[in-house]
Amino acid sequence: MKAFNFITPYRVEKPRKNGITMMLDKGMGLRVLEDLMEVSGEYIDFAKLGWGTSALHDRELIQNKAEMYLSYDVNPYPGGTLFELAYMKNKFSEFLDESDKLGFTAIEISDGSTIISPEERRNIISKTKERGFTVISEVGKKNPQDDCKLDTEDRVKLINSDINAGSDRILIEAREGGKGIGIYDECGNIKEDELEILAKTNMEKIIWEAPLKNQQTDLILKFGPNVNLGNIAPEEVTSLETLRRGLRGDTLGKLDI
Amino acid sequence: MKAFNFITPYRVEKPRKNGITMMLDKGMGLRVLEDLMEVSGEYIDFAKLGWGTSALHDRELIQNKAEMYLSYDVNPYPGGTLFELAYMKNKFSEFLDESDKLGFTAIEISDGSTIISPEERRNIISKTKERGFTVISEVGKKNPQDDCKLDTEDRVKLINSDINAGSDRILIEAREGGKGIGIYDECGNIKEDELEILAKTNMEKIIWEAPLKNQQTDLILKFGPNVNLGNIAPEEVTSLETLRRGLRGDTLGKLDI
Amino acid sequence: MKAFNFITPYRVEKPRKNGITMMLDKGMGLRVLEDLMEVSGEYIDFAKLGWGTSALHDRELIQNKAEMYLSYDVNPYPGGTLFELAYMKNKFSEFLDESDKLGFTAIEISDGSTIISPEERRNIISKTKERGFTVISEVGKKNPQDDCKLDTEDRVKLINSDINAGSDRILIEAREGGKGIGIYDECGNIKEDELEILAKTNMEKIIWEAPLKNQQTDLILKFGPNVNLGNIAPEEVTSLETLRRGLRGDTLGKLDI
Repeated sequence: MKAFNFITPYRVEKPRKNGITMMLDKGMGLRVLEDLMEVSGEYIDFAKLGWGTSALHDRELIQNKAEMYLSYDVNPYPGGTLFELAYMKNKFSEFLDESDKLGFTAIEISDGSTIISPEERRNIISKTKERGFTVISEVGKKNPQDDCKLDTEDRVKLINSDINAGSDRILIEAREGGKGIGIYDECGNIKEDELEILAKTNMEKIIWEAPLKNQQTDLILKFGPNVNLGNIAPEEVTSLETLRRGLRGDTLGKLDI
Repeated sequence: MKAFNFITPYRVEKPRKNGITMMLDKGMGLRVLEDLMEVSGEYIDFAKLGWGTSALHDRELIQNKAEMYLSYDVNPYPGGTLFELAYMKNKFSEFLDESDKLGFTAIEISDGSTIISPEERRNIISKTKERGFTVISEVGKKNPQDDCKLDTEDRVKLINSDINAGSDRILIEAREGGKGIGIYDECGNIKEDELEILAKTNMEKIIWEAPLKNQQTDLILKFGPNVNLGNIAPEEVTSLETLRRGLRGDTLGKLDI
Repeated sequence: MKAFNFITPYRVEKPRKNGITMMLDKGMGLRVLEDLMEVSGEYIDFAKLGWGTSALHDRELIQNKAEMYLSYDVNPYPGGTLFELAYMKNKFSEFLDESDKLGFTAIEISDGSTIISPEERRNIISKTKERGFTVISEVGKKNPQDDCKLDTEDRVKLINSDINAGSDRILIEAREGGKGIGIYDECGNIKEDELEILAKTNMEKIIWEAPLKNQQTDLILKFGPNVNLGNIAPEEVTSLETLRRGLRGDTLGKLDI
């Protein structure tokens, strides 16, 4: 039973279709991870081992971490940059094999640092899907100068094309920093026009990367407690869950729960 | 014995009336907490389980955390937002019961997200006091637009009224961020005029929320090593104690210790 | 074996002359430290127990931490501010004795908060060297107003003088914050002119304090994966190593590895 359970508002439990929280793991150790899972494992749906970090750790450690995540019903997956590196080196098939052996259950397909043709992208998505992975495809470029060349129409096309190709989730790129990229301006505030258009695609499948608290708050106030959010820092997971439930001043009394 | 004990300046030990450090716990796990307590438990007087975070964790975990804090002579207490939620739901009495059962020894009374009449506020403070809790009452609003409507005179009145009603400590609101709220401007710098006036009330009872390092430094340089400071991040507790003792460049040689 | 080892680019292993990473430990506990060492001990060459933090912890804890670091071939050392405090109190000799007993293998000689004559500085460096410590001497002032009075020529002179006196490494001061100090402007961006001049001294010996990600990225892009970097936060160590190896978007495909 939860502490103060006469106060805590209910939220749909895992496994859930909406209200997804994706956490960004930049290289946590096993003890700290276990501690976090005990405290907030139930509030995390996906854990991304950010960009290429998992390639710097021993296979055994990654396997143990994946196992730990899975025991708390959290889906672990390697960062999209690692997929891109493997793809550029013609090691896509080895990448999927290794991901499977390590215990990852989802794969992120991105072109944040590479160029992949639309056809090839669809092909990769369906191959990954066939291998039994949950597919998360990312829309956006890592470099802000490249990212701003993608207009909203391009993004909408990509989202729809990815969903048709079989993507389970569409991740809207904002990186770890969340400024001057995707739906955020230089200060990390939401560009409302762009957001509105993207939100008209398939909100249930979209995960908005939202590393900053004001972004999490604004998206929850706009779309409700069960908006899908990603790139949440480990130490902010509980805090995000309080925002979703109106247990923090920013959303208290302002949500329909 | 401390390392380099021929260098370390003395500071009054716990339990102490002044030089209070209140730490903000946003949902730490038990192992990480134990690690922190071993390293810096002696430098922490109060631990606030921020806003509604404790309502998301199992009773057993919260009880274990409270016990851990108490074993290091740290007073744990739930965030003021949780009190406000309970109060709005007419569950104030259950809130005090549950806080007691969980092992909390202090209660924060705030109206950061609600409206409570002055008379009712005094009533709540004295009831909480009668139940045997240390009472920390907070002055300030969570929403900057509401907070700036409170002028300095209002704050002074509230401080004095709270002390008369029995509050042990008055907490000056600055939230986790520390910008554009209470005594801090948009950049997180101190508004000197406001600070001077509030400081004339009862400095011994006031705890200044000061999440940012420049705020901690400036308040220590102005009021000395034993100013009461709150909303300190767990990983900054040791660092704050070095500021208080002139063991960091910012205050080295500038304090009367 | 590393996960995804068919992707991971090679980098020279410890003990190494270049590509040094110095981590800033602000007071980690033993369990969290062990967790970190297991995950990224191989990517850390030096660990600085920042400024005077070690003087607030029990000798036994510091000894255990030093032992833990050494077991992972990481050289632990106390912050320069602690040396300065000991020196001002005429306890330099006791400082070296205590550092040795605690298990520190390096010493930082700085004058960030004090004034030490050039001759005395050379004397201190050679005495510390004779005692068997690795000597890291720091160039820069803690207070930005003092720091900006040091012109580039002064810094170059100091670097060369320190190297002649026997310093193993020269640390370019940027503090924990990395803004408005040394080679960084108010926003934390590199002042290119100053950097160019300092880089012409003895790049192999210089460790650039670079707490911010943009600083790490820019220095790696300019000087390559094996530039020496310091004041890296514990949770950023793995991330920095991915930048050094082109495993993150910021440096992917842009390095000669």
